[in-house]
Amino acid sequence: MRITEVRVTPVAFRDPPLLNASGVHQPWALRTVVEVVTDEGLTGLGETYGDLAHLELVRAAARLLPGHDAYAHHAIYAQVAASVGAQVTTRHATARTATKEKTLDRVFSPFEVACVDIQARAAGRPVADLLGGAVRDSVPYSAYLFYKWAGHPGAEPDGFGAALDAEGLVAQARLLVDAYGFRSLKLKGGVRPPAEEIEAVHALRDAFPELPIRIDPNAAWTPETSLMVARELAGVLEYLEDPTPGLDGMAAVAAEAGMPLATNMCVVAFEHLPPAIERRAIGVLLADHHYWGGLVRSTQLARLCATFGLELSMHSNSHLGISLAAMTHLAAAVPTLAYACDTHTPWLAGQDVVAPGALRFHDGAVEVPRGPGLGVELDRDALAVMHENYLKCGIRTRDDGGYMRTTDPAFSSARPRW
Amino acid sequence: MRITEVRVTPVAFRDPPLLNASGVHQPWALRTVVEVVTDEGLTGLGETYGDLAHLELVRAAARLLPGHDAYAHHAIYAQVAASVGAQVTTRHATARTATKEKTLDRVFSPFEVACVDIQARAAGRPVADLLGGAVRDSVPYSAYLFYKWAGHPGAEPDGFGAALDAEGLVAQARLLVDAYGFRSLKLKGGVRPPAEEIEAVHALRDAFPELPIRIDPNAAWTPETSLMVARELAGVLEYLEDPTPGLDGMAAVAAEAGMPLATNMCVVAFEHLPPAIERRAIGVLLADHHYWGGLVRSTQLARLCATFGLELSMHSNSHLGISLAAMTHLAAAVPTLAYACDTHTPWLAGQDVVAPGALRFHDGAVEVPRGPGLGVELDRDALAVMHENYLKCGIRTRDDGGYMRTTDPAFSSARPRW
Repeated sequence: MRITEVRVTPVAFRDPPLLNASGVHQPWALRTVVEVVTDEGLTGLGETYGDLAHLELVRAAARLLPGHDAYAHHAIYAQVAASVGAQVTTRHATARTATKEKTLDRVFSPFEVACVDIQARAAGRPVADLLGGAVRDSVPYSAYLFYKWAGHPGAEPDGFGAALDAEGLVAQARLLVDAYGFRSLKLKGGVRPPAEEIEAVHALRDAFPELPIRIDPNAAWTPETSLMVARELAGVLEYLEDPTPGLDGMAAVAAEAGMPLATNMCVVAFEHLPPAIERRAIGVLLADHHYWGGLVRSTQLARLCATFGLELSMHSNSHLGISLAAMTHLAAAVPTLAYACDTHTPWLAGQDVVAPGALRFHDGAVEVPRGPGLGVELDRDALAVMHENYLKCGIRTRDDGGYMRTTDPAFSSARPRW
Repeated sequence: MRITEVRVTPVAFRDPPLLNASGVHQPWALRTVVEVVTDEGLTGLGETYGDLAHLELVRAAARLLPGHDAYAHHAIYAQVAASVGAQVTTRHATARTATKEKTLDRVFSPFEVACVDIQARAAGRPVADLLGGAVRDSVPYSAYLFYKWAGHPGAEPDGFGAALDAEGLVAQARLLVDAYGFRSLKLKGGVRPPAEEIEAVHALRDAFPELPIRIDPNAAWTPETSLMVARELAGVLEYLEDPTPGLDGMAAVAAEAGMPLATNMCVVAFEHLPPAIERRAIGVLLADHHYWGGLVRSTQLARLCATFGLELSMHSNSHLGISLAAMTHLAAAVPTLAYACDTHTPWLAGQDVVAPGALRFHDGAVEVPRGPGLGVELDRDALAVMHENYLKCGIRTRDDGGYMRTTDPAFSSARPRW
């Protein structure tokens, strides 16, 4: 099953002004759609980040894949590694956050997902079956709550309304829970002073006493502030996500906090695991196949976490339906997944590159698609529109901080802030 | 793809009197052949240990598998776990070495291999392709050298001759290297006093200066003796395998030995990894899909080892061609495998349950079978003969020590011995 062509299409879709410690979501979110075409007529789908530096790495790797066998993941990984290595050395050596391994796994991921999709389509089986089989018929997701403005500056309010305090967040949660049936809540914090966010969590707890709650300030707090929040929210949070930057801070907080610490910031590549485990810095890993090198590597990560007593949850960036399908198959096939997964899907307000109907929320969970492969099909008209959006929107790199500074010139995303 | 039938066939084959720290191999070695039959006409093969207690656990689990989907590994694992849990609780609670997890993974393994075989046959691809693809066309194995008697007591000498000293071992190595082209040597030690085994390793080094050498005394030495041997063989051994019992001893030796320590004794289940890693007790893990729960779990183990800087090699018990095929596919698809694998194949002297021709040694390596699945087919006549052997041989549990005591009533396999 030879790869004959790889299509890489950057897309943009409208995104509400969601606030976080880095700033605020721009009016357009970027993604990259990957199609891997084979000589047997099967095409697999993958989806990844849309930032230009990443897109260029994906494009460079994609050019080298024709001729490879769609089952030859190790060979494809080596090919992507050679490509990324050359690119990173020549152009991105000073990239701020990316270790080479982390960059490689991120670039490899959409190709891996597409190849697993191809293999599953060839077998006439859902992707979950190639990962050991679904252990649940549907995958629970959490309502991902954001502080947000009513609309983008200078634009009409969006349909979600403003959420700038506890009352607004409770209303937002009500909207999402009513529409999707979510059975757990996640609050993106790090936006308002900690006392206000503590108040918001208590308000959510009072309004939804049955639903587990987590908060993620994206490392906006010092260890001392983190422990203050942990004390105030003891017995309320199921876990506390990335309260403070770095392993030292996380380990210090973990040693005294009354709930597990979770992360998708201080452990984002295999090489980060040994020191995090040695220092008992985290209790829950928020896996994300987009940066853990795809689906199979994520199942390997799950085994490692189970071996060392780390619990598993799942992280989300803004994403489209290809990713939601991949996340759902993966989550269905990981027996040790212990929490509802994060997803940005509701914030899409129906925009997608996949044909409607394959992915549906019921009681806050997405049924595992039963069709072959990922179980979703590309909507070529929607893809064309979203690619046009990309060409016209003028955004090439996500910059929540720069966008925030167009409104608040003094804004700084330096962390910890409180 | 529903499982309709699972056939479990115990077999016995002739085994030479190979000496080790436990005693000596009995005239017959036991194995169990597993056939998983599906409603789509595809049958997968697995192979596992033949000891009666294990056979009974395999048989009990096999009875519960019809109706399960051959892709549903997690569900099958849960079914096997329920079966083993019930059996272990009621009958084997005091089993000497087996933790429950270890027992479960051992019982699950042949079913998993058979199901992967089925999936690969359904895809028309070699098993290695379902594990990420072969990164090598052939898998190197080592010449597995044993101290041995000329023949079993009261029987004619076998074709391998005696090997009771350095000279005999060099002659044995010459025989195996000439016949199979092996490019590395492994000596099963723990049989003669350490000074003699050191002498034997030096003799092998002199006779085969190009070939890496390892020695495995199966924990027959104290930590002090182990360090003495490590000093004497510094620069000669590629690794020192299980010199001494237990993590404490291994960690003490590892801290001072000039070569990596390897194990297939103190780390044989996922739960053993965290303490071994924390104490830096080993540098090389000898994986073995027969007790690490099959092929996919072994690839997960490989990822964990790579993450923590443990090198990988592969262990072998006496086995037949189904296992050799599985080991070869797995080893071919694990990029981080760093050493030639162990195998007992030469000691079979041609006996097998698979049709000849699919597995050939060339330059000490086995070419990865290219046919679909494991690439080997059951030879039903050979299976019937070997099953007859099993019924007639009278051996139901391997007992190297008891067999040794029929010749040397004072023999003790207690360790450490030196």
